[in-house]
Amino acid sequence: MKSYKKRDFPVSDIRRFLEPGPIVLVSSAHKGERNIMTMGWHTVMEFTPSLVGCMISGGNHSFELVSGSRECVINVPEAHLAATVAKIGNCSGADTDKFARFKLTALEADEVRAPLIAECYANLECKLVDGRLRDDFNFFVFEVVKAHAPASPKYPKTIHYRGDGMFMVSGRSLNLRRHFRPGML
Amino acid sequence: MKSYKKRDFPVSDIRRFLEPGPIVLVSSAHKGERNIMTMGWHTVMEFTPSLVGCMISGGNHSFELVSGSRECVINVPEAHLAATVAKIGNCSGADTDKFARFKLTALEADEVRAPLIAECYANLECKLVDGRLRDDFNFFVFEVVKAHAPASPKYPKTIHYRGDGMFMVSGRSLNLRRHFRPGML
Repeated sequence: MKSYKKRDFPVSDIRRFLEPGPIVLVSSAHKGERNIMTMGWHTVMEFTPSLVGCMISGGNHSFELVSGSRECVINVPEAHLAATVAKIGNCSGADTDKFARFKLTALEADEVRAPLIAECYANLECKLVDGRLRDDFNFFVFEVVKAHAPASPKYPKTIHYRGDGMFMVSGRSLNLRRHFRPGML
Repeated sequence: MKSYKKRDFPVSDIRRFLEPGPIVLVSSAHKGERNIMTMGWHTVMEFTPSLVGCMISGGNHSFELVSGSRECVINVPEAHLAATVAKIGNCSGADTDKFARFKLTALEADEVRAPLIAECYANLECKLVDGRLRDDFNFFVFEVVKAHAPASPKYPKTIHYRGDGMFMVSGRSLNLRRHFRPGML
């Protein structure tokens, strides 16, 4: 399995990984239980503080763990983990230890009790900052309090979900800096 | 300029276009003014009703138009519009009619007063359903009440923003249906 040499990554820059819209793995832990869920519904919300909005449906086992602990880790997998990502989304943490089943390595985080997934490109440690839309929409606003990512490659090869079992793999880079005002870069 | 033959598209299926996380163009209209903004911070929130959460910063001219009209259209551009998308994000509707400046065609929508952008692959007519997080986070929850998209191609070639003037163009498709439980497809 591919491994990464990670370093601390500035939390205000994590839009680099999340704004393109990849499928991510959310890890959580609460009262002796841990879990992983596949999540495609999320959005960056602010640079500083570094905020991310996430949909964690009440039907997911992770909803209780995240609600109870008010923490999670957002892990960004690369394309070589695609089959694992799909399988994680198609079984329940209620009857499966997904770390064991999918041979994923749980590493201790610095700021939260939820584990990092070592096999993912980036790991974003998150704390809940607003739950007003949780009960009506299953929407959680998290602050990324610590981020881990490798220095190279600069951009992960991510996978993006289209529904119906179909994914899109991130493609070529396009530099449009020439069209940006200096203050926008 | 590329043109599309669009038909009504089921609003409960628009995750096909938005969940992969493309940059979109938000068009709005209010009290005789209209505008377009580039938006990368959005998330699908529900299938039925078809909900999308969007970050429209208070610094954008569109914030007032969307807040006042409680409507917008989310337009999904393809890669051939990338330079235009970047330029739209780097000028203000306060002093520019972006439809005129960028030679974009405003079409009348069916359910909202905001115009559709003809040159975009898909057009999602949206009405505000929850603004509780608007003042604190600039976060709007919209219901997609009508959608327009071509029958072919099934998937648009989208662009995804990484920050710093760098975009990613959507790449190859990956079919992982074999890993899905029937109820998840």
